[in-house]
Amino acid sequence: MGLITLTTDLGHRDFYQAALKGSIISQLPDVRLIDITHEIPSFDIQYAAFVLKNAYQYFPKNTVHLIGIDTVFQEEARYIAMNYNGHYFVGADNGIFSIILGEEKPSALIEIDIMQDLRYLHFPLADILTKAACHIANGGKLEKIGAPIDNPLEKATFQPIYTSDYIKGHVTYIDSFGNVISNISKDLFNQVQNGRKFELEFKRNETIDKMSWHYNEVSEGEKLCLFGISNFLEIAINKGNASQLLGLYQDETITVKFKD
Amino acid sequence: MGLITLTTDLGHRDFYQAALKGSIISQLPDVRLIDITHEIPSFDIQYAAFVLKNAYQYFPKNTVHLIGIDTVFQEEARYIAMNYNGHYFVGADNGIFSIILGEEKPSALIEIDIMQDLRYLHFPLADILTKAACHIANGGKLEKIGAPIDNPLEKATFQPIYTSDYIKGHVTYIDSFGNVISNISKDLFNQVQNGRKFELEFKRNETIDKMSWHYNEVSEGEKLCLFGISNFLEIAINKGNASQLLGLYQDETITVKFKD
Amino acid sequence: MGLITLTTDLGHRDFYQAALKGSIISQLPDVRLIDITHEIPSFDIQYAAFVLKNAYQYFPKNTVHLIGIDTVFQEEARYIAMNYNGHYFVGADNGIFSIILGEEKPSALIEIDIMQDLRYLHFPLADILTKAACHIANGGKLEKIGAPIDNPLEKATFQPIYTSDYIKGHVTYIDSFGNVISNISKDLFNQVQNGRKFELEFKRNETIDKMSWHYNEVSEGEKLCLFGISNFLEIAINKGNASQLLGLYQDETITVKFKD
Repeated sequence: MGLITLTTDLGHRDFYQAALKGSIISQLPDVRLIDITHEIPSFDIQYAAFVLKNAYQYFPKNTVHLIGIDTVFQEEARYIAMNYNGHYFVGADNGIFSIILGEEKPSALIEIDIMQDLRYLHFPLADILTKAACHIANGGKLEKIGAPIDNPLEKATFQPIYTSDYIKGHVTYIDSFGNVISNISKDLFNQVQNGRKFELEFKRNETIDKMSWHYNEVSEGEKLCLFGISNFLEIAINKGNASQLLGLYQDETITVKFKD
Repeated sequence: MGLITLTTDLGHRDFYQAALKGSIISQLPDVRLIDITHEIPSFDIQYAAFVLKNAYQYFPKNTVHLIGIDTVFQEEARYIAMNYNGHYFVGADNGIFSIILGEEKPSALIEIDIMQDLRYLHFPLADILTKAACHIANGGKLEKIGAPIDNPLEKATFQPIYTSDYIKGHVTYIDSFGNVISNISKDLFNQVQNGRKFELEFKRNETIDKMSWHYNEVSEGEKLCLFGISNFLEIAINKGNASQLLGLYQDETITVKFKD
Repeated sequence: MGLITLTTDLGHRDFYQAALKGSIISQLPDVRLIDITHEIPSFDIQYAAFVLKNAYQYFPKNTVHLIGIDTVFQEEARYIAMNYNGHYFVGADNGIFSIILGEEKPSALIEIDIMQDLRYLHFPLADILTKAACHIANGGKLEKIGAPIDNPLEKATFQPIYTSDYIKGHVTYIDSFGNVISNISKDLFNQVQNGRKFELEFKRNETIDKMSWHYNEVSEGEKLCLFGISNFLEIAINKGNASQLLGLYQDETITVKFKD
């Protein structure tokens, strides 16, 4: 019957996300709709990319992920659809696709070309993008709704800096439990660590030198670090809000030093 | 299979909206349920009417829109169901139906008469109103669940004041992006404007004299006005929170002056 | 097709609840998913138990209620599934099952034994618990996924103290309307009252001596008490936020005195 997920900054207080769902159901009555979230901070494509990149893999192959962030119509705007890792992604070409892809390449990438007969001029998300998403969820082919393009719009994201002895990254996401997630991936950490001991440093004097597997390997209220659900280095406090208790917020620097 | 939308002030923290859904599914296991929103401010039927009036049109004809605002049982309470524009609306007769209708007339309007065997005395929404909604969503006729009435309860809403030279309206809704939406409809604006220039005035010294089509026709951080998704005159800031940045809040007056 | 409800503290801002849903749909594509709530305060199993205990009864028999609170993996952790009142409950054995049961006994209670092949080591909720929930929702038997156990982990909950002349309870829950709900059940109240008059006392000098049936039996802004949707003694204000207006919060004592 087709499965479409929704990732937007539309919130739940207005009628916008309901209009989006109504528009989809009107086109494809049997589709299954799942909200990834409607609570992305307004226009924050970095945040949206983080959430979607981590969430999409849990869904079945061929799921269509509709991205409703920063989709306002403009003359030079491109709306695109891509196939990546067996999943489909549909949204405005505002940089979010390049953040989701990182260094990887999509299997297919098209510019959506179904702009005729716009019904909702002020709401392309409920029009162009839902048409494309429904077409794909209904088994339609990408080439029917647009022509291939080479690359999505590039958007710079800060990558960790590293030598053979340290990795310097930063906080990219604070989850609603207050867990502090960095941009240091497990792969990069393992590659640079190469079996040695490590010391994670943040704020002025805070350090952690043991990698945990679970939040509850330390006493309640104690800090720890682990590679959690997101596969990025995460600083947490067992049953506590690490961000608030450690005063560690978005964009702050964290450093991992390695020694024999 | 039938489609029921839900518009309530029940929130997501309590068990009330879940009880509502459980009650519906117990009666009609295959129904499709879509949340318009559960985040209407408590008892705010003006807010609920605005959201629902704008959202319902995106759904397929014959959708049943269940309104769960101010539904507490009382001796003199009426619960009503109406057919309007090919959609069904079910709720308490507390004034919201007249706000949704405005100057228009419904195709059918009945007082629901299925009060016997109340299971949830304290929760008519989960009882009388879900029974009525499920009956209709299942293809049942209105006349089976009540007798026709002439009009829903009238509720005064402030309409704009206008002459041939100006329209004085007010702010009726601030959306979660901070866009400021007034009660001046596109139809009224066009009728009074009659091809002339205009100047929109608000706060002490703020003015706008150009109508935009899109939020991004001005630079980021600049103010604009447009007829947006809601078809009412809206004051916005490109990628900014207009309400906060302009200090423009619910119920404040805005004036449009016209001249040759 | 099977019906699974979700009660978690995962919120809507992160990708966790989406991952949970994706994981379930990947296993059981036709399942119906209903959110009871994802807004339980972090780790608050008392709150979760209150919400779920009140909500589950509205759903059809054989619904599977998946509880995603405090499910972090640990060596000594038990994950359990129970059949109670014709409904299934699946979650971590952290005390919530005993709170839901109160003095009652489940029809069946097993320790889930499908720990092999953990895919999401850091996210048992999306792995062990969804496997168990899908197995049951798909019509599978409890004994296929684990062996019977005698009792869930006991968790102390404060019960009201009473004599033949008074009941002393406390506030256990404030709903999002500000209604103040106590731990004094209707059964206990009726049993001790035994047809006599009563006076409810709280804060320093506040008293109520009349039981209401509906919130609107007193004037707007006036206080009242009733047995509401939850069947526990509740203090409310007609169209007002009782908790804020009366200064009555979580865990405060309330006393009911009875006299001829």
